[in-house]
Amino acid sequence: MAKPSKISGFPEWLPEQKIAEDRIISKIKAIYESYGFVPIETPAVELLTTLGSKGVIDKEIFTVQRLKADGASEAELGLHFDLTVPLARYVAQHDHELSFPFKRYQLQKVWRGDRPQKGRFREFYQFDIDIIGRNDLPVACDAEVLSVVGLVMNEFDVGGYQLRINNRKLLAGLYESIGLDGEGAKKAITAVDKLLKIGADGVARELAQISGVTAAMSAKLLETTTIKCRADELSLKVSELGLSGALIDEGVSELVKICALLPESAKESLVIDLSLARGLDYYTGLIVEVGLLKYPEFGTVISGGRYDNLASEFTDQKLPGVGVSIGLTRFMELLFSENLIDTSKKSPSVALVTVYNEDDRPGCNQIAHQLRMAGVPTEVYFKSPKLGKQIEYAEQRGMRYVFFVDSSSKSVQVKDLVTKEQRPVTSVSDWAAESRHDR
Amino acid sequence: MAKPSKISGFPEWLPEQKIAEDRIISKIKAIYESYGFVPIETPAVELLTTLGSKGVIDKEIFTVQRLKADGASEAELGLHFDLTVPLARYVAQHDHELSFPFKRYQLQKVWRGDRPQKGRFREFYQFDIDIIGRNDLPVACDAEVLSVVGLVMNEFDVGGYQLRINNRKLLAGLYESIGLDGEGAKKAITAVDKLLKIGADGVARELAQISGVTAAMSAKLLETTTIKCRADELSLKVSELGLSGALIDEGVSELVKICALLPESAKESLVIDLSLARGLDYYTGLIVEVGLLKYPEFGTVISGGRYDNLASEFTDQKLPGVGVSIGLTRFMELLFSENLIDTSKKSPSVALVTVYNEDDRPGCNQIAHQLRMAGVPTEVYFKSPKLGKQIEYAEQRGMRYVFFVDSSSKSVQVKDLVTKEQRPVTSVSDWAAESRHDR
Repeated sequence: MAKPSKISGFPEWLPEQKIAEDRIISKIKAIYESYGFVPIETPAVELLTTLGSKGVIDKEIFTVQRLKADGASEAELGLHFDLTVPLARYVAQHDHELSFPFKRYQLQKVWRGDRPQKGRFREFYQFDIDIIGRNDLPVACDAEVLSVVGLVMNEFDVGGYQLRINNRKLLAGLYESIGLDGEGAKKAITAVDKLLKIGADGVARELAQISGVTAAMSAKLLETTTIKCRADELSLKVSELGLSGALIDEGVSELVKICALLPESAKESLVIDLSLARGLDYYTGLIVEVGLLKYPEFGTVISGGRYDNLASEFTDQKLPGVGVSIGLTRFMELLFSENLIDTSKKSPSVALVTVYNEDDRPGCNQIAHQLRMAGVPTEVYFKSPKLGKQIEYAEQRGMRYVFFVDSSSKSVQVKDLVTKEQRPVTSVSDWAAESRHDR
Repeated sequence: MAKPSKISGFPEWLPEQKIAEDRIISKIKAIYESYGFVPIETPAVELLTTLGSKGVIDKEIFTVQRLKADGASEAELGLHFDLTVPLARYVAQHDHELSFPFKRYQLQKVWRGDRPQKGRFREFYQFDIDIIGRNDLPVACDAEVLSVVGLVMNEFDVGGYQLRINNRKLLAGLYESIGLDGEGAKKAITAVDKLLKIGADGVARELAQISGVTAAMSAKLLETTTIKCRADELSLKVSELGLSGALIDEGVSELVKICALLPESAKESLVIDLSLARGLDYYTGLIVEVGLLKYPEFGTVISGGRYDNLASEFTDQKLPGVGVSIGLTRFMELLFSENLIDTSKKSPSVALVTVYNEDDRPGCNQIAHQLRMAGVPTEVYFKSPKLGKQIEYAEQRGMRYVFFVDSSSKSVQVKDLVTKEQRPVTSVSDWAAESRHDR
């Protein structure tokens, strides 16, 4: 007999946690849909050539192979490691069947072939939105994505969050003006990206390693990272740096335009933060990250940005886009471990129909059926022990109402476990309507 | 550039199909929850020792390995091929954290490492329910599962279905009475299981191959398979066969009890069918299959039954259970290909706010925000071309309402694309309340 055990990196929730996760998923889905995003789902499996299409495979991929290999043993398939590569493949493949701008949301597991290690997930949910344009896509779409991010974060009671944004054009302009471009600028961005982790001194040390970066350039570069401001202050703050250029103006202008389009609720937690770099080459305009004020070490809940070309590996159409990804599983784990979410609901059931005698069961089932049709999730106790034991079962699963059915007299009583009141029920549907607000 | 292409056996829907699938999923989920089933989700990946725990690995398993193998290259992980093995592992592992009877539902993809072939899925959704007891589980639970199956099938307009049930004890009793048990009975069940596919003559030929099966036995056995009746006829029909025994009585009694506990709606399509065998050793009592009257060649939409012991490989606790599995993806494919489901809804959006001039966009966003807060999924057109083009976009995506915002006069108008009426809107929330029934 094999004692079953947890596989490191593959999280698994208890039912009450899954109920809570499903509640969160429904809320986020409702927000996405309120903006007209459509759902898609892609297979978990892609061709390895697709997964590796961005050039070097830098994420560790899980390959997928038949156990009963017959000859051809080389793996050709792998599990997707994010939802962006599958989106690119999907849009390129179904091009003529989609309408643009293509606004999609996607909730799926992704897999990372990391070595097993504590706190690192190898299977987790991502919950993404992206807006994909054909040829061009106005910054109004960037604002829309940010608005959604604000609405999503406002659903959680996590002690506050910060929505940090920046712009890659602004960064490139600033670096260029300092005297860094090409490889040097790339390396500098990678260094600055570590600011939260290794501090300004650490970044300075890394910058000193980059050929062509003088102490004065490094100091100026670090000065840019101190700017954290609102949109109406940005232009002044940047001009105070004494740096200028067309790219800088374009970056500033985009950020100001985007912020002007946000609802007030999204603006409250928003900060333009010039230290935000995001290491990926991928992004070309807006970049965004959401962190938690009370849990800075948690890192990023949501991240993303604007890119020029979604699917250049699969199509010669130009498909600019903007999107973000929620790392749902990691976030759920935080909510659970810090007790930031209610997991007291252990069952969808609201009512229990007790069974006094097995001969009554058909009648009990009928009452339960009426309750369900009236919108009340209902269980019938599966055996017929003493009523006390059945009531205890209802209490343990958090059901509020217990029904007693007397088949011989055809009478039904209901007990409210909260108010402790018991009363006869003449019509199940009337009772369901009356009790709606208490449930 | 790699032209992306479909991987055989890994289905992928267009957004309007995914919207339809999500609608079906919500309906089924609501039915499951109305009976108090709780959701669980297990990793896609299990240890190969877990997947192979039922002895021989007869399903072809997809193994999962890191691409960057470091030394240990033997695969230890695989994708689950059903949701029953993961359920068994889950219940054994979380035993003390669950309450019994454990009623769970589970919607997840499963993977089968088949050779690529037409019409065979290698990745598909299963949508399962099971009720797991500790030590014992009354047949009331079998009836509950059947009731759920009836409610689920009544959601679909597929030209009728048949809910066929049988009982393994009854079958074993009949075979024993004919003179078949042990291996002979097993082989006979496998042969009878093919009745729909190969007909009575085909089954007779297969039975003739089984050692110890005489022509008389074969004829008697085939006679049993002709019984298709209601619960109140079963006892008479079986006695007319001239076969008797304790197991036969027990099987008949269970079937009669179960049927007495069903709601009328589930009884209408129900037939006790003694030709239903289901090849698996797994089942020990009730067996159930749902087929479609108009699409007999489609095979089974839902199947399952009663088993004595869920997790004997993982725990020495006795965990009897009863459950069914919906082959959701195959069923969705039928609904799509036979046009049995509405896929006209291409977007969740109900309203479009048009943008006459980019300067108006902040005001347009505000109106859209109010609409969303009032429960109306709303898009704002992403650019500001001629209004005709924007209205066309709304029509194409199936949005019913188009809003016109004049920022200078602060006036808002709405056009109903169905009634063609246009009128001013003074309060967005009032409008949302008034139009609720039309949306």
